[in-house]
Amino acid sequence: MGHSIASQCNPVEQLLQRVRQAASQLAHSDLKQRNDALKAAAKALRQYEPEILAANAQDIAEAKVSDAFKDRLTLNPSRLEAMAKGLEAIAELPDPLGKIQAKWVRPNGLKIRRVTVPLGIIGMIYESRPNVGADAAGICLKSGNGLILRGGSESYRSAQAIHKAMQQGIQTSGLNPDVIAMAPSSDREHVTHILHAVGQIDVLIPRGGKSLIEFVQRESRIPVLAHAAGLCHTYIHKAADFDMARKIIANAKMRRTGICGATETLLIDQEIASQLLPKIVKDLSALGCRFLGNDQARQIIPDMKIATEKDFATEWLDAVLSVAVMKDIHQALEHIAHYGSGHTEAIITEDESIAMQFLNSTESAVVIWNASTQFCDGGEFGFGAEIGISTGRLHARGPVGIDQLVSYHYEIFGKGQVRPL
Amino acid sequence: MGHSIASQCNPVEQLLQRVRQAASQLAHSDLKQRNDALKAAAKALRQYEPEILAANAQDIAEAKVSDAFKDRLTLNPSRLEAMAKGLEAIAELPDPLGKIQAKWVRPNGLKIRRVTVPLGIIGMIYESRPNVGADAAGICLKSGNGLILRGGSESYRSAQAIHKAMQQGIQTSGLNPDVIAMAPSSDREHVTHILHAVGQIDVLIPRGGKSLIEFVQRESRIPVLAHAAGLCHTYIHKAADFDMARKIIANAKMRRTGICGATETLLIDQEIASQLLPKIVKDLSALGCRFLGNDQARQIIPDMKIATEKDFATEWLDAVLSVAVMKDIHQALEHIAHYGSGHTEAIITEDESIAMQFLNSTESAVVIWNASTQFCDGGEFGFGAEIGISTGRLHARGPVGIDQLVSYHYEIFGKGQVRPL
Repeated sequence: MGHSIASQCNPVEQLLQRVRQAASQLAHSDLKQRNDALKAAAKALRQYEPEILAANAQDIAEAKVSDAFKDRLTLNPSRLEAMAKGLEAIAELPDPLGKIQAKWVRPNGLKIRRVTVPLGIIGMIYESRPNVGADAAGICLKSGNGLILRGGSESYRSAQAIHKAMQQGIQTSGLNPDVIAMAPSSDREHVTHILHAVGQIDVLIPRGGKSLIEFVQRESRIPVLAHAAGLCHTYIHKAADFDMARKIIANAKMRRTGICGATETLLIDQEIASQLLPKIVKDLSALGCRFLGNDQARQIIPDMKIATEKDFATEWLDAVLSVAVMKDIHQALEHIAHYGSGHTEAIITEDESIAMQFLNSTESAVVIWNASTQFCDGGEFGFGAEIGISTGRLHARGPVGIDQLVSYHYEIFGKGQVRPL
Repeated sequence: MGHSIASQCNPVEQLLQRVRQAASQLAHSDLKQRNDALKAAAKALRQYEPEILAANAQDIAEAKVSDAFKDRLTLNPSRLEAMAKGLEAIAELPDPLGKIQAKWVRPNGLKIRRVTVPLGIIGMIYESRPNVGADAAGICLKSGNGLILRGGSESYRSAQAIHKAMQQGIQTSGLNPDVIAMAPSSDREHVTHILHAVGQIDVLIPRGGKSLIEFVQRESRIPVLAHAAGLCHTYIHKAADFDMARKIIANAKMRRTGICGATETLLIDQEIASQLLPKIVKDLSALGCRFLGNDQARQIIPDMKIATEKDFATEWLDAVLSVAVMKDIHQALEHIAHYGSGHTEAIITEDESIAMQFLNSTESAVVIWNASTQFCDGGEFGFGAEIGISTGRLHARGPVGIDQLVSYHYEIFGKGQVRPL
């Protein structure tokens, strides 16, 4: 669209010109071409397994990070096979492009329809597992978008080896491999180049810790799809089924404590707290969970530490649960409005009207009745794959999959109509 | 959502805290309450006519702007009545909130549905006619969004009088009038406050000249819905119906030259140019249009001025037409990709396969076959009212009406499901 890029532009800008050109072709490719490219990329990941694992071993050997983080960065044959299978699964999904979302005829005879088209160019900055880059590439290929990747410097060699393999695969399928680009080195200045590529990148998707997300949101004027925090609440209403409540909160908190959909705060009605809370504390303690509570919670479980304002505002991402005993649903809704991050909240109750009040009054992306907050996930939604989760309200909210990475345009069919004065 | 605003915040931040609270109530109001508020606001505009016209007269008397601009700022009884009628028309539109956009059941029995909710708080900075503020307020009321308005300093008194009247109307209907706020003075620093209200304003909609839009896009990290430019093309293909082509280009260029959907550049196939172009030049010259052309166009119309690179990149917003004779559709598509602003493009042809090629290959928000580009308008689309037009690809594209000013959330209905390990 007439971007006049100076000839002495930086390496990322140069790369993005090639991405734009390749993406323009990809946008007009047919479904079979895109699916063939996905399958070829999967095949290439398997074919280049030795090179990818060797690059990863070198990353791990040099990475100065915690053992837990190293484990997340480590690739092995089964993790690589899962990445390849992920790409093949994306190939099985229906085409997100060319969908007619709406059509109508105006009184003057003009026919108007709204049709899905790719978003454009996605910029992805991630510091998470190397599979994030492969998943993102698969989702962008399917949805017709160009992509520029910038992985964490600790796993740069792994990301580069994966990227190289996928490009080889895409090339054998006949599509232009430039459509999936990667920052040319692990130089930190390339992050700056990506953040400043206004007009060349249409949306940024950062994946990683809170400080990375906040950095991207603060430094870039390119729109950002992200969740800065997942401070999720589970509220147990007085009309809850106790067995169900125990099962759900154990899963919502402890299934995986490090994911954004994990419950961080339990809100529980005072009418049932003295009966139910001790059971929950027993259940979760057995799973290794620690607790902090408000005054009322500590009257029931005296050896619980006190939860401060700051604790209720903390996304633990760990085996820690903040607990607050609530007067009623109104106090619970106020607590969520004050401390929540707009991600996912659940209510457990057998009372349908209370459940609907909760669902309608909570301003979060996902609101759940009688199930675990950990269901906030593209795969669990049936999206097949996700590139991230958005807590913003513009464009996509909640899990972002291939159907969220599209825009639309209007097609108007006339027979010579002109607009009246 | 837990925004911790310091107690010594600026006046706009203070105002926005009240907007947020009022918007939270508005989001959960029913359709009748919102429609009643719209009708009451319309009534109040009529009731306060003397005050509004007096404030406007004072603005006009002091405004140091061109006569054309003064005319756009001037209110009179019929313009005010049109504003009131506009609000009543919005009250007649169907509810954009609570719409179930999709629903499905997962294999584990979880029922998921995606339901429309308000976007949140809209910030509107405008330097255009005073009615823009009233239209925006009406659209936000209907779609459940809070609004903060900042009109141009030349019409600050008019905007303030309109705002005051509308708030009175909203109050009599029983809704909290804080939901529609206005910057507390015409101080330029309030613009800065609005642009910096990250977390308090969800989307900015600037309306006005290109420099205002670009200023807002450059200075704010809040997402912006806007069109910075409307450099629209009409391409006359060799298989066009000549009479239709003449009628359409006359309307597309000359119906109104100052709107963003006006055609700025005519592309015409060389095979028909020598026959058709002289007729078009004659038609449009009679309407007061001037022309600039590429070399081939000037071979046909020798007294046409030469069109430079810069001319083809210029949105005239005036009775001026750039003309380029094209080899074929490929060259036309390249010209549009290079010079276009992503707004609206039209093709005139009787050849359906060429038309579909054009519609599929143009990356603009609106693509039109055999009709005037001036149809790119919320009213003409049947949206009832528009708050602006977006040339971005994120969230809303093309005309932005009540159905574009919503977000969605997911509601999940379970029976105790937990996520498998």
